[in-house]
Amino acid sequence: MDKIEHIGIAVENLEASNTLFEKLLGVPHYKIEEVVSEGVKTSFFQSGPNKIELLEATKPESPIAKYLEKKGEGIHHIAFAVEDIISEIERLKDEGFVVLNETPKKGADNKLVAFLHPKGTNGVLVELCQEIKE
Amino acid sequence: MDKIEHIGIAVENLEASNTLFEKLLGVPHYKIEEVVSEGVKTSFFQSGPNKIELLEATKPESPIAKYLEKKGEGIHHIAFAVEDIISEIERLKDEGFVVLNETPKKGADNKLVAFLHPKGTNGVLVELCQEIKE
Repeated sequence: MDKIEHIGIAVENLEASNTLFEKLLGVPHYKIEEVVSEGVKTSFFQSGPNKIELLEATKPESPIAKYLEKKGEGIHHIAFAVEDIISEIERLKDEGFVVLNETPKKGADNKLVAFLHPKGTNGVLVELCQEIKE
Repeated sequence: MDKIEHIGIAVENLEASNTLFEKLLGVPHYKIEEVVSEGVKTSFFQSGPNKIELLEATKPESPIAKYLEKKGEGIHHIAFAVEDIISEIERLKDEGFVVLNETPKKGADNKLVAFLHPKGTNGVLVELCQEIKE
């Protein structure tokens, strides 16, 4: 785990939250990206070496819609940058963590991603993400 | 806001979580520190330029005890590094954010800290922290 790549925050209204987080962080978001397979629309802010990812649900069966219904707005996950997601998944499985998708999938912001089950990490949804090199 | 300084995670049992997060992050915690005024015992892990702070309550009236009772274990707050906490508090007040302690207080890990009310930040408890220079 090289650094916190980003923190994902579930929001009800991406447009309103973009305005709010621009005031908070002192910089505008640098991109908006929809991940159709996950049912989310995201926006990204840079904060030094890290990013903040806001997540809005685009359909009722989206994991973000379910999260908002159950817990309301707030921090949804923490993502760590990794150099080699395949070997990191293997390492974590060997340590006893439950990997939700053992085959990494394409996430927002040009990343391969995998998630760990929060029941094995003190309630924290942990994402691993590896930059896709063209 | 210069970077994510750390992510605070509320845990029931610091000792067990230290073992768990050492496996997750691949490094041991580098310090344990009690903040008596806040009723918390903390441990810190380095992750590149960022830190993970685990928080265990040391008394029932601790904010962490209340958080655990209400929400269970999980991500408690996100802390941003700032150069000048006083001017950052002023800037955020002018932007309409509610600062929970307008006079910064001494936090863990040699920091002056202030918190923003999560009702004004999409449910996210935001901490500002400035390194105390000796």
